Amino acid sequence: GVLFLLNYVLSLLSWRQMSDGETKRVTHSIKVGLALVLVSLLYMLEAVHDRLGDNAMWAVMTVVVVFEFTSGATISKGLNRGAGTILGCGLGSLVALLAQEIGGAGKAVAIGSSVFVFGAAATYSRLAPNIKKKYDYGAVIFILTFSLVSVSGVRGDQIIKLARDRLSSIAIGFAICLFIALFVFPVWAGDELHNSLSNKFDKLAESVEGCLEGYDSLLEGKKGAESTRDRNRANCLSVLCSKSSDEAFANFATWEPWHGRFGFYYPWKKYLHMGDSLRELAASLLSLTGCLQSIQQAPQECLLIGVKERCESTCKLLGSTLRELGRNINDMKSHQQREKNLEELKKLRLELCSTLASTMKMLVNQNGAIEGGASITSSVFLLVEIIDKVEVIVKETEDLERVADFSLK
Amino acid sequence: GVLFLLNYVLSLLSWRQMSDGETKRVTHSIKVGLALVLVSLLYMLEAVHDRLGDNAMWAVMTVVVVFEFTSGATISKGLNRGAGTILGCGLGSLVALLAQEIGGAGKAVAIGSSVFVFGAAATYSRLAPNIKKKYDYGAVIFILTFSLVSVSGVRGDQIIKLARDRLSSIAIGFAICLFIALFVFPVWAGDELHNSLSNKFDKLAESVEGCLEGYDSLLEGKKGAESTRDRNRANCLSVLCSKSSDEAFANFATWEPWHGRFGFYYPWKKYLHMGDSLRELAASLLSLTGCLQSIQQAPQECLLIGVKERCESTCKLLGSTLRELGRNINDMKSHQQREKNLEELKKLRLELCSTLASTMKMLVNQNGAIEGGASITSSVFLLVEIIDKVEVIVKETEDLERVADFSLK
Repeated sequence: GVLFLLNYVLSLLSWRQMSDGETKRVTHSIKVGLALVLVSLLYMLEAVHDRLGDNAMWAVMTVVVVFEFTSGATISKGLNRGAGTILGCGLGSLVALLAQEIGGAGKAVAIGSSVFVFGAAATYSRLAPNIKKKYDYGAVIFILTFSLVSVSGVRGDQIIKLARDRLSSIAIGFAICLFIALFVFPVWAGDELHNSLSNKFDKLAESVEGCLEGYDSLLEGKKGAESTRDRNRANCLSVLCSKSSDEAFANFATWEPWHGRFGFYYPWKKYLHMGDSLRELAASLLSLTGCLQSIQQAPQECLLIGVKERCESTCKLLGSTLRELGRNINDMKSHQQREKNLEELKKLRLELCSTLASTMKMLVNQNGAIEGGASITSSVFLLVEIIDKVEVIVKETEDLERVADFSLK
Repeated sequence: GVLFLLNYVLSLLSWRQMSDGETKRVTHSIKVGLALVLVSLLYMLEAVHDRLGDNAMWAVMTVVVVFEFTSGATISKGLNRGAGTILGCGLGSLVALLAQEIGGAGKAVAIGSSVFVFGAAATYSRLAPNIKKKYDYGAVIFILTFSLVSVSGVRGDQIIKLARDRLSSIAIGFAICLFIALFVFPVWAGDELHNSLSNKFDKLAESVEGCLEGYDSLLEGKKGAESTRDRNRANCLSVLCSKSSDEAFANFATWEPWHGRFGFYYPWKKYLHMGDSLRELAASLLSLTGCLQSIQQAPQECLLIGVKERCESTCKLLGSTLRELGRNINDMKSHQQREKNLEELKKLRLELCSTLASTMKMLVNQNGAIEGGASITSSVFLLVEIIDKVEVIVKETEDLERVADFSLK
């Protein structure tokens, strides 16, 4: 505890040397602290406490539980909490009032069975994928509020007041969260998704360009370049595993108001589609690195004449194309070079195919080199596939530019 | 609400036709309902309410928030909640008492600043990946309890009693959850991870075997078999995206007590390693399906003589090997055939390599068929790669059998 605190203070003192993500994390923690202090002061105010009583603690609870890293997540959780509380309070009060009408032993039975039925049904709904993604937290809060309100109805009959106080204290807590999340150094889920998309382009560009080093180290007979390969693999794998975090960001981004460069109804879904295409490209790149890694015997020099140069220029062009796409998306600028890009890719594809044919011809004249040659032809073939996938991505970027109204450079 | 309830009741009536997952979901919802009723009855009992007062509501809250789908997750959340509450209560009481010593306006300042410091530090720690994975919920509860206890210290001085009552009501709620999670149709995270691993084998086996249909439809000139390919792709992608859910299950599985076939210290980490290898295999399979899909011109018949048969037998053997591995893992039985498997794979690899060589020779004599031929040789090459990866997986399965003490069949 104390050690951690010291560590934290030390990290605050070295503010300037922090990375971007680190700064965001520290800012977030300070924002949460600020919200907590505000809500605590409110709790300590006589006026508020006299009106709301112990229900004021629900404001504290709301701040702790609702304040998330991105503004969109905070809004989504807050609205879920509000809706769950209203529904739970409403139904709970109804059940409590009805139970009071019954009275006697029937009261406990009525309340118990209604808690069972609504609790089970809401829990079941939480397990449905669609509800889990967007309304999971609302369902939890519904169960919680419903049980608390209906059960406490057994004791008091001031249920309506209880429900009103609880709601207003949650509203106070949410208002504090909302204010800080929207106006104090906001972190937008939309920005995160946007950056994650353009980062993916950079990562894949780096991997494509890194493939060359595999070829180089092969030619020079080095066993090295392990670290480059590992980084390439790690890049591809991180892109492959990004689906769930992207989906979460896209979900939260739809809750966010107009901010910065993103209006309402910004096509976040398109980002998910592009993410899928990029993941397919990452899978192909992963096989390509695997393919290059499996070259167990160096093929004869003559096999590589022309092939190496062509592969190098292909990788370079693919890398620069991806990087440029990433930069354009990051800056939200449209380029009129897309058509040119596509044509270049098509030309490259034809060239590679003819390289493939000539390599194969040469291969057969050189017996014994078959295995090394096979991995090279396969690599070239995979490169052709990768070109196809990059073409798809260029087209999708064009789509995105059109749908999201990127400005022309 | 009501419609959903009706739907839920209807689904209960059709119990017999339910799938396995559906049954588990319905059972879970009933378990939660049961726990809620138990804790509500407790809340309604005069004896309990007189002792714990409104703090009894923390028991209800604990049940709602802590009860998760798997027993391991419930235990992990419950322990996190307990630890967070104890820490928060302890530090909170301390701060409240100190603030009371100071008194006057200093009191509010002391409490406010301590809430800020501890809240910010704990929030910052939540963003560290290691803590986020295992102790995220504990940190939330720590912040919550600390703020509530220290702030309410401004009003009463019965803090110790408050803290004790809150802790005991959380303990009651957790005990109810624990009892139901462990003894009423428990769903173990370990079982889920175990099944997910053996399912991955089945899915990949299906994909390997499905590749054949791509070849077949190619030969028969059909454009069909789209659905098979889509299913293969979906299988591979679902394996590729399983990393985060596997990690969550493995984390929860370590919290679970001895149950069924799994003792303490069962090597769950090994499952994650195997998952990684299977994901790599899935990436290769994805490229293979892509490769087969990209065959744009059917190659001449003569090219396929021998190739098709060999690929078919390879895919069949790979599929059956994967299926058997999956079955063995599922049954936790060891096989002494591993060595034989590896030898078969090695033989297959050599055969495929010679097929590759002869296909390439043939290819050059048939000008114009180069492109179709290139995709075929690449497919064969990728198959060789896939054999390598299956070999790795066979060896890892051997490891797992040894580490996890599978019984000999």
